[in-house]
Amino acid sequence: MQGQSQQQAYDRGITIFSPDGRLYQVEYAREAVKRGTASIGIRADDGVVLAVDKRIRSPLMERSSVEKLHKADDHIGIASAGHVADARQLIDFARRNAQINQLRFGEPIGVETLTKDVTDHIQQYTQIGGARPFGVALIIGGIDADGEPRLFETDPSGTPYEWKALAVGADRGDVRDYLEENYDEGIDLDEAVGLALKALGSVNDDALRPEAVGLATVGVDDREFSQLTDDEIEDSLVDLDLLADENAVDGDETTDDATEE
Amino acid sequence: MQGQSQQQAYDRGITIFSPDGRLYQVEYAREAVKRGTASIGIRADDGVVLAVDKRIRSPLMERSSVEKLHKADDHIGIASAGHVADARQLIDFARRNAQINQLRFGEPIGVETLTKDVTDHIQQYTQIGGARPFGVALIIGGIDADGEPRLFETDPSGTPYEWKALAVGADRGDVRDYLEENYDEGIDLDEAVGLALKALGSVNDDALRPEAVGLATVGVDDREFSQLTDDEIEDSLVDLDLLADENAVDGDETTDDATEE
Amino acid sequence: MQGQSQQQAYDRGITIFSPDGRLYQVEYAREAVKRGTASIGIRADDGVVLAVDKRIRSPLMERSSVEKLHKADDHIGIASAGHVADARQLIDFARRNAQINQLRFGEPIGVETLTKDVTDHIQQYTQIGGARPFGVALIIGGIDADGEPRLFETDPSGTPYEWKALAVGADRGDVRDYLEENYDEGIDLDEAVGLALKALGSVNDDALRPEAVGLATVGVDDREFSQLTDDEIEDSLVDLDLLADENAVDGDETTDDATEE
Amino acid sequence: MQGQSQQQAYDRGITIFSPDGRLYQVEYAREAVKRGTASIGIRADDGVVLAVDKRIRSPLMERSSVEKLHKADDHIGIASAGHVADARQLIDFARRNAQINQLRFGEPIGVETLTKDVTDHIQQYTQIGGARPFGVALIIGGIDADGEPRLFETDPSGTPYEWKALAVGADRGDVRDYLEENYDEGIDLDEAVGLALKALGSVNDDALRPEAVGLATVGVDDREFSQLTDDEIEDSLVDLDLLADENAVDGDETTDDATEE
Amino acid sequence: MQGQSQQQAYDRGITIFSPDGRLYQVEYAREAVKRGTASIGIRADDGVVLAVDKRIRSPLMERSSVEKLHKADDHIGIASAGHVADARQLIDFARRNAQINQLRFGEPIGVETLTKDVTDHIQQYTQIGGARPFGVALIIGGIDADGEPRLFETDPSGTPYEWKALAVGADRGDVRDYLEENYDEGIDLDEAVGLALKALGSVNDDALRPEAVGLATVGVDDREFSQLTDDEIEDSLVDLDLLADENAVDGDETTDDATEE
Amino acid sequence: MQGQSQQQAYDRGITIFSPDGRLYQVEYAREAVKRGTASIGIRADDGVVLAVDKRIRSPLMERSSVEKLHKADDHIGIASAGHVADARQLIDFARRNAQINQLRFGEPIGVETLTKDVTDHIQQYTQIGGARPFGVALIIGGIDADGEPRLFETDPSGTPYEWKALAVGADRGDVRDYLEENYDEGIDLDEAVGLALKALGSVNDDALRPEAVGLATVGVDDREFSQLTDDEIEDSLVDLDLLADENAVDGDETTDDATEE
Amino acid sequence: MQGQSQQQAYDRGITIFSPDGRLYQVEYAREAVKRGTASIGIRADDGVVLAVDKRIRSPLMERSSVEKLHKADDHIGIASAGHVADARQLIDFARRNAQINQLRFGEPIGVETLTKDVTDHIQQYTQIGGARPFGVALIIGGIDADGEPRLFETDPSGTPYEWKALAVGADRGDVRDYLEENYDEGIDLDEAVGLALKALGSVNDDALRPEAVGLATVGVDDREFSQLTDDEIEDSLVDLDLLADENAVDGDETTDDATEE
Repeated sequence: MQGQSQQQAYDRGITIFSPDGRLYQVEYAREAVKRGTASIGIRADDGVVLAVDKRIRSPLMERSSVEKLHKADDHIGIASAGHVADARQLIDFARRNAQINQLRFGEPIGVETLTKDVTDHIQQYTQIGGARPFGVALIIGGIDADGEPRLFETDPSGTPYEWKALAVGADRGDVRDYLEENYDEGIDLDEAVGLALKALGSVNDDALRPEAVGLATVGVDDREFSQLTDDEIEDSLVDLDLLADENAVDGDETTDDATEE
Repeated sequence: MQGQSQQQAYDRGITIFSPDGRLYQVEYAREAVKRGTASIGIRADDGVVLAVDKRIRSPLMERSSVEKLHKADDHIGIASAGHVADARQLIDFARRNAQINQLRFGEPIGVETLTKDVTDHIQQYTQIGGARPFGVALIIGGIDADGEPRLFETDPSGTPYEWKALAVGADRGDVRDYLEENYDEGIDLDEAVGLALKALGSVNDDALRPEAVGLATVGVDDREFSQLTDDEIEDSLVDLDLLADENAVDGDETTDDATEE
Repeated sequence: MQGQSQQQAYDRGITIFSPDGRLYQVEYAREAVKRGTASIGIRADDGVVLAVDKRIRSPLMERSSVEKLHKADDHIGIASAGHVADARQLIDFARRNAQINQLRFGEPIGVETLTKDVTDHIQQYTQIGGARPFGVALIIGGIDADGEPRLFETDPSGTPYEWKALAVGADRGDVRDYLEENYDEGIDLDEAVGLALKALGSVNDDALRPEAVGLATVGVDDREFSQLTDDEIEDSLVDLDLLADENAVDGDETTDDATEE
Repeated sequence: MQGQSQQQAYDRGITIFSPDGRLYQVEYAREAVKRGTASIGIRADDGVVLAVDKRIRSPLMERSSVEKLHKADDHIGIASAGHVADARQLIDFARRNAQINQLRFGEPIGVETLTKDVTDHIQQYTQIGGARPFGVALIIGGIDADGEPRLFETDPSGTPYEWKALAVGADRGDVRDYLEENYDEGIDLDEAVGLALKALGSVNDDALRPEAVGLATVGVDDREFSQLTDDEIEDSLVDLDLLADENAVDGDETTDDATEE
Repeated sequence: MQGQSQQQAYDRGITIFSPDGRLYQVEYAREAVKRGTASIGIRADDGVVLAVDKRIRSPLMERSSVEKLHKADDHIGIASAGHVADARQLIDFARRNAQINQLRFGEPIGVETLTKDVTDHIQQYTQIGGARPFGVALIIGGIDADGEPRLFETDPSGTPYEWKALAVGADRGDVRDYLEENYDEGIDLDEAVGLALKALGSVNDDALRPEAVGLATVGVDDREFSQLTDDEIEDSLVDLDLLADENAVDGDETTDDATEE
Repeated sequence: MQGQSQQQAYDRGITIFSPDGRLYQVEYAREAVKRGTASIGIRADDGVVLAVDKRIRSPLMERSSVEKLHKADDHIGIASAGHVADARQLIDFARRNAQINQLRFGEPIGVETLTKDVTDHIQQYTQIGGARPFGVALIIGGIDADGEPRLFETDPSGTPYEWKALAVGADRGDVRDYLEENYDEGIDLDEAVGLALKALGSVNDDALRPEAVGLATVGVDDREFSQLTDDEIEDSLVDLDLLADENAVDGDETTDDATEE
Repeated sequence: MQGQSQQQAYDRGITIFSPDGRLYQVEYAREAVKRGTASIGIRADDGVVLAVDKRIRSPLMERSSVEKLHKADDHIGIASAGHVADARQLIDFARRNAQINQLRFGEPIGVETLTKDVTDHIQQYTQIGGARPFGVALIIGGIDADGEPRLFETDPSGTPYEWKALAVGADRGDVRDYLEENYDEGIDLDEAVGLALKALGSVNDDALRPEAVGLATVGVDDREFSQLTDDEIEDSLVDLDLLADENAVDGDETTDDATEE
């Protein structure tokens, strides 16, 4: 509906509105998110689960260096997708804000409060000139002071959304379709872990290798962010009949110089 | 009257005047407002009502995260339409100004004063280089110290307008036509709530689901911003014969990556 | 005399001179003034009168929110035409300067002094980069300390002009022709009010509705800025045989999204 | 010698050199000066005279608001031509510098010193980016501490020139030809006043109306800047047989929106 | 998939997103890395080894001035590839951070901590306008406080990666293929040195001259960065049957004015 | 050797290198110097002489306002050619530096020291963005503390050169040819004055009018900058048979609006 | 390999990477270096020698004003080639750093330390926007505290190189070929002086005039930078059979307005 030559006029230099009210730099940053592999968040009655695709580009790379699962505070975890270096900036920003909140008010920061601190920070980079937007989406999940599990998304425009279950990154559409079809209100954390793995499997030929998956949960009981070990993930994959052949290579290797995950 | 190639010359970079005295960046920001769903404000003799369209893009998204109704102060509410992340900046600005007014003068801020604080802030972003305008319109409604209900609009140019009843966002024209035809001077708050729902229904095939509607009022009696529950809204919709079939999907789903509401 | 393609070269980015010594951004700002409805100022022997066209774009809009008549100080009023949000900035600037003058010197600011404070402020926005000019013209009228009525204009270039009678905004040329033909030296304030209404009527099919007109005077006797009520205006219109049919709509409605008045 | 397309390359953005060593923005500012009506300065043995063309664009405009004759200090007057708002900035700058000199050194500022303060200020706007040059030329005339009458010109490049007699603004060339032909060394102030009026008349069909002319002198005797009244000017015009028919309109009315005088 | 003319639009001026979510300036900086000769890092059970190609462009140049091996702290070494002058900035930054950590916390900085300090610094240059990205990749290897050998990469996007073995710079792909084929978990430092030399030889016709190779190790025993002498390297090359003919010239001389190594 | 279209690419905006290593803005500033009339400096055994062409564009202009000969300090004179307003900035800079040197060290500034202060200042304007280069060349001549006459040139690049004899401005090439042919080592100041006049005459049809020439000397005896009177110059011209016919007009009048001398 | 039209895209405005990872502004600055005449540095066992080509563009220019040999500190000399005004900035920077080192640490600055201070300064101008790179290369030679002679090069990218013998400026390639062929390890300072002159002669038809050559040495004995007199140089040239015919003109005169040496 909008010719290519006209579009070009609005995507150079600072972030400005196009004649139909769009911010192209923000939309392109959203493409950077899609260049990363998928990350998934699911809210259960008794906690939240974050699952990420940890495919690597060489067997010599340490999978632990694929930073897609982050602990923001004891009770809050973050999964990211998109430009890695940008994600690190936002994670650091989130951690600092969580600490400051603890120091200032003597209590853990709320999940929504933290999310909105982050999105307000992101918005600045879309309105004030001299910088580009952040090319990353975050899934922020945790337990509020009242014991309620919460699950939020931040996007490159700086908009906060709350979800029952969501996916960001590559195959976002397919994973969300899977989640919309299979998510049930009232599931518990174990079921949520299974759903997350199955959703991830749905875009990986239903076969996952434990070390290529990252999984973390925050339960309402202990309110502790905890990552699952490869063995725990393998057990789950076996249960779900999703375990990939040991010799399989990473499903769809990213290119050599990718800076998105 | 103005060819496309000439128009392009004025919509890049900073906000400057076109030969016919227009500010294109401001007009494009106004398009961003139209990309959001409708928000409505109506002034009654005994209060103001704010109503918003809360359509969501996935059943997994929490409707509460569609932030279109905001409490600015005990006695003032704000409904927004347009770029969500920008709206959050202005709402925060409004809240801070309301608090500062209370601290400095020991009394609640006037609705008009708050509106003009906000519009002056918006204007700066249309005249000083290095930033883009805000892509959002606000409806600011509340009760003044003298017990008078007031209802204002802020637009992306930074102009404040006072209204008896108005709509911003998508379908603005149609909703306003409906309001102009059906608004009566001297209606009370209950009638205003009904009119707001009927106006919203008029552009939704006269069928609304309670959870897809946001409704808030500030009455002259208690001078308290209060949001209606889904049940209260459902009761009203039943009374008005506007209740949608339970299995209906959101009328006109917004696109996946929309950042306007 | 100047082709369109060459003209384009000078109207982008900061305000610079064209080869024939013109400042296009200033001239385009002047177009923004013309997009606003007319404002009129007339100097009488015993005071000044300011009259404005308050047409609104919807019957639901409060006419009081069409801000074209402003009190700058007890003894000085300002009528504006053009970009509303810009006008508010200049009015605030004028008010602050009037207050500072009172505080610093213990006496009311002179009308010419205030005008030149404002025009010097406007000029800065036409010479220093990083901002656009103000898209508004002001008529500043009041009574000096020596009891002399004074009437000034500020334009987007920052030039101050003193007038016996003038018009700014839409139909400026026609209204000025009317004033040049009908203004007499030595008229008193009552006659000036009548002349202002007749001038306004001359571009409105000689029919005005009281609520669509704003009228204010500053007399040499009390040196007080005072706005006329709708009833007082109606009485004048009846006397002048200018009263419009009650059911008439606003003569020439401005477009929906206009930000000029 | 320089094609139009190449010329365009050097007249946008900041003031930079063209391949043949010219500063186009400065040359265009000089065009702004030519858009103003003529101003004349003549040095006599016993003083200096400044004469300006005060044509106005409407009989309703106060001629006193055509600001082309300015008192910079008791002993120094300034006549300007070109962009009015820019002229005001330079006049203010000159007045402040004159006052500072008096305060700091306890004596009136020298005419040449004041001129060079002004031209150095002008030069900054032609070399440092982020602003445009001043579109105005000044004639600065006065009496030095040693009783010597001095007459200087400042142009938009920031160059100071000393003259026996000069003209700036429209018709500069014709007036200068007249002056070169008719100026005699050793004339006294009265003769200089006559010459100034005749020079002004030479480009106005040899007919001037008193109120359309501004005349000021600074004599070596009293070292006081003093403006002639309309009556005094009329007497001179009668003597010189230059008095225009009373009903004549201003010779060559400037356009409606001109910001140059 | 992306035509050249469109690509050009995104690689000028500041670092912004292309429509497909890429940062071209970062990708071009990565090309600057490829213009440098290869650098290799290998992690063994008892330490890390860094090896660099020190080819020079003239026999008169001191090989010691080819700065590709740097001591960041006693226990951390850095190998670089790419734009030399940029590498120096990052090495200085790393050294300062290591020193500050020692001063502030009284203990050696962790290898991962140091890496992330550096990558966060790099990221700033890809998001904030007014500077270009760093055209260099670093291999940061050392021993953590717990005796664990660590090996990281920083790339021009500011992404940190952890590796068992990696190569950066020219022939990166070929060297990595060699390493993937020949790296075994559990090798010791001596074997790692041999592997590094063989990998370097694999892209140099399996013939290396001692002085054209830089080799440094950090062992878990002494935690000391130590560079091997030419004699030690020669012994290793003899053992590995990689010693080049003495009269051989540098394999593939870089061009005269290269600023990458 | 360099086509016009390519050249255009390097002469806009800030001063940057062209592909062949040239700074076009500096070269264009050098053209501004050539637009000024000639200035000459000659070093004799017992002093230096500065001579300038003082042609004016109207007989009404005071020749003294053609500022091409300046006293920088008691013992140093400066002759300029090019953009007059720029020259004034550099002369002021030189005078301040001479005074500061006297205050700080209690002795007159060296001619070379002063020259290099000026050229370092000039260089800044060719490397740091946001300003254009100075369009002027200076000849700085004086006597050092050891009694040695020194003669320097500053050009728009900020390069200092020492000369025995030189010319800058229009006809620079022809005057230099004349000087190279006729300058003898060991000439005294009187001979140098003669040579300077003859050189100036060589490009003026061997005929000069005293008032159109500026001449100043600094001798090793008194170390005083002193300008010759018109009579002294006339005597010299008579002696040299260079005196022009009294009624001759200025040889080659510069254009009306020239800002170069 | 890179078409001209594409190349143009990367050489405007600030210094950014081209698609193949090059910094064009830096490469163009390197061209500015090649526009200067040759400078040579040779390291001997007992000192370093710097030799420069001092060709001038007019016999009237003082050869001493061709600034290509500079004393940075007692024990360090610098030879430059390229844009003269830029060289002066770097020399001043080097001198200040040498003095500061002496004051702060009580000992002479190391040659490598000084070199890297300079190259880090140069690098800043290639990465941070708002300035162009330095168009100059330096040869920095001196004696370290341990009595070791050192010889470094700085280039416009900010890369430091250490050499046994090198050339910068015009004919750099030919002189380096000569040096590579004729340089022997272990030569003493006298032999190095001879080699330097022969290398310079090799690109000047094997004929040099003493005054057109600059020669300086820093010996390990006295650690003093000392320049050879014309007589000393002449003696050397006679010994080497390189003395040019007395009447010969400068071999290849640079153009009139060159700002490179």
